[in-house]
Amino acid sequence: MSSLTTTQPPKGLEGVVATNSKICYIDGDHGVLAYRGIDIHELAEHSNFEETCYLLWFGRLPKRNELNNLRKQLAEERHLDPAIIEFLRNVPKQALPMDVLRTAVSALAFYDSDQKKNDHDANIRKSIRLTSQIAMIVAPTAERALVIALVLHADHELNASTFAARVTAATLSDMHSAVTSAIGALKGPLHGGANEAVFRILETIDREKADPVEYVRNMLAQKKKIPGFGHRVYHTEDPRATHLRVMSRDLGKSSGKPKWYEMSEKIERFVKAEKKLNANVDFYSASTYPALGIDEDLFTPVFAVSRISGWTAHVIEQLDDNRLIRPRAEYLGPEYPNRYLPMDQR
Amino acid sequence: MSSLTTTQPPKGLEGVVATNSKICYIDGDHGVLAYRGIDIHELAEHSNFEETCYLLWFGRLPKRNELNNLRKQLAEERHLDPAIIEFLRNVPKQALPMDVLRTAVSALAFYDSDQKKNDHDANIRKSIRLTSQIAMIVAPTAERALVIALVLHADHELNASTFAARVTAATLSDMHSAVTSAIGALKGPLHGGANEAVFRILETIDREKADPVEYVRNMLAQKKKIPGFGHRVYHTEDPRATHLRVMSRDLGKSSGKPKWYEMSEKIERFVKAEKKLNANVDFYSASTYPALGIDEDLFTPVFAVSRISGWTAHVIEQLDDNRLIRPRAEYLGPEYPNRYLPMDQR
Repeated sequence: MSSLTTTQPPKGLEGVVATNSKICYIDGDHGVLAYRGIDIHELAEHSNFEETCYLLWFGRLPKRNELNNLRKQLAEERHLDPAIIEFLRNVPKQALPMDVLRTAVSALAFYDSDQKKNDHDANIRKSIRLTSQIAMIVAPTAERALVIALVLHADHELNASTFAARVTAATLSDMHSAVTSAIGALKGPLHGGANEAVFRILETIDREKADPVEYVRNMLAQKKKIPGFGHRVYHTEDPRATHLRVMSRDLGKSSGKPKWYEMSEKIERFVKAEKKLNANVDFYSASTYPALGIDEDLFTPVFAVSRISGWTAHVIEQLDDNRLIRPRAEYLGPEYPNRYLPMDQR
Repeated sequence: MSSLTTTQPPKGLEGVVATNSKICYIDGDHGVLAYRGIDIHELAEHSNFEETCYLLWFGRLPKRNELNNLRKQLAEERHLDPAIIEFLRNVPKQALPMDVLRTAVSALAFYDSDQKKNDHDANIRKSIRLTSQIAMIVAPTAERALVIALVLHADHELNASTFAARVTAATLSDMHSAVTSAIGALKGPLHGGANEAVFRILETIDREKADPVEYVRNMLAQKKKIPGFGHRVYHTEDPRATHLRVMSRDLGKSSGKPKWYEMSEKIERFVKAEKKLNANVDFYSASTYPALGIDEDLFTPVFAVSRISGWTAHVIEQLDDNRLIRPRAEYLGPEYPNRYLPMDQR
């Protein structure tokens, strides 16, 4: 394997630069996250989801008529082919919501008027269409608190789902293939599925009337990983957690269900002291979403409603200057040549 | 970004080791491909697809009763839920075959009895099930020539579709998500879609009664890439091309349609002399598949019927010793902090 880079990168490509990108800036040491250079704290305060989509797709903030135009286009795409609606109606009860979303997005390709095109402009149209369609499939309400959550979750550089989308797109496959891959990756509990895992713990503590700190101490004693803590990239507080903590507290109060925030806050303080781990974006979204009336099994689909804006921006960027993403594996199996033994000699 | 590896790997992660693997050995300088250390030339001569599946999934050749048992299990899984059959019947005419396959596999998750399990044994069962189901959806006939083609295409280390599957699986998402990602990546013309592109050229030459060498010379003069030549990993002949060239020739003769082989052979000789590029696996599969009665739009789906064995083996390997695959991007966009300007100052 003489043509391989000889020093092997760390497992999971940790810290390895896999591509250039002009979309998302992260400084993991200082807890900075910015879209096209604009800090998410400014965006969370002043911006909205459509404007954030524009920023991600076109690289700058929209002028008034550009934003109005994008809103109009998003509204025009707010419909689903009757076959997709029929499909959603007939999904069996046992199907998992993320499996349904993945399949529905995959099937949307059949009805996309641009499906045989893969150029920049066609992919902008597909991005707008998919952003509307995914929101329709998941059907979230758009209160200001949810808008902020959507802005905060819109992009996060080469997170696993975005990387899966770029690997898929880089074969010159298409937008629907790439987004379907992303949804599949987002489903995992090490990624978008983490906030569901956090909420299941909060629910169990509540149901068993357990002490939150004792419950988590017990998990740690059993060497269990506490979901919602630590991050591959941030070595300080995840800037999204800063916002979600406040939202969780305020929404908990105003919705008359402060218990999820109160438990979370105790757990955060304990894990921080005990394990020096910071709460990440998933930890406080677990107590924020229920206060917005979002059910546990919709946490990850709502994440997708937001992240579709980043996925599509990355796919467009990948295709604008494409190279197949095809690393190597270091072979550690039976030594070559390993002889093919006939059946009766095995 | 102080925590990033400072030397940036080449674009597309070329030559970068992204993981260890015991499945597939490639020596790109000497044109060697081996599954679990066993050379594919030996497998193409002696083995069959079910045995190759066993080898990929379990790490060694099966004993007679183990092979019989696997064949029995594959046969038992050879059925589709009526809802999936109904779905396939109702797919609109304009839908692309790989979009249909991707959606069908995504929807199979709804009916998988192991869908809430993600352990090693459940994933072996899902691998067997998906291998049978994909073959049913694509419905290929299993002549010896096709069997050899299936063995040759079964795995190829960290090719883009397998890498997409591993990136997806590494979030602890599930087998169906990973295989759906892989199908989406395989669809691209830089990957599984390449043999279709080769065949379209052969068809055009045939229809226009053009001289194959002149036609390709003209493409090169227009700076067009000739599909089916060159490979990211092989710097000599792709060992799969060696087999497919012979199959293409022999099947062309026996099926009474030697023209595709004859054109291909002329093109290969010219491109090799002119550009020093070797034919890859896609080049001769384009002239082999039609001789097997496989239509152009089923080339890539048939590739999936075979590669499902490798995808599933890699997903199982990934999950047996998992770490999230999450590289970084080098940010080249507007410098941080880029201020959020109010609407009327833009």
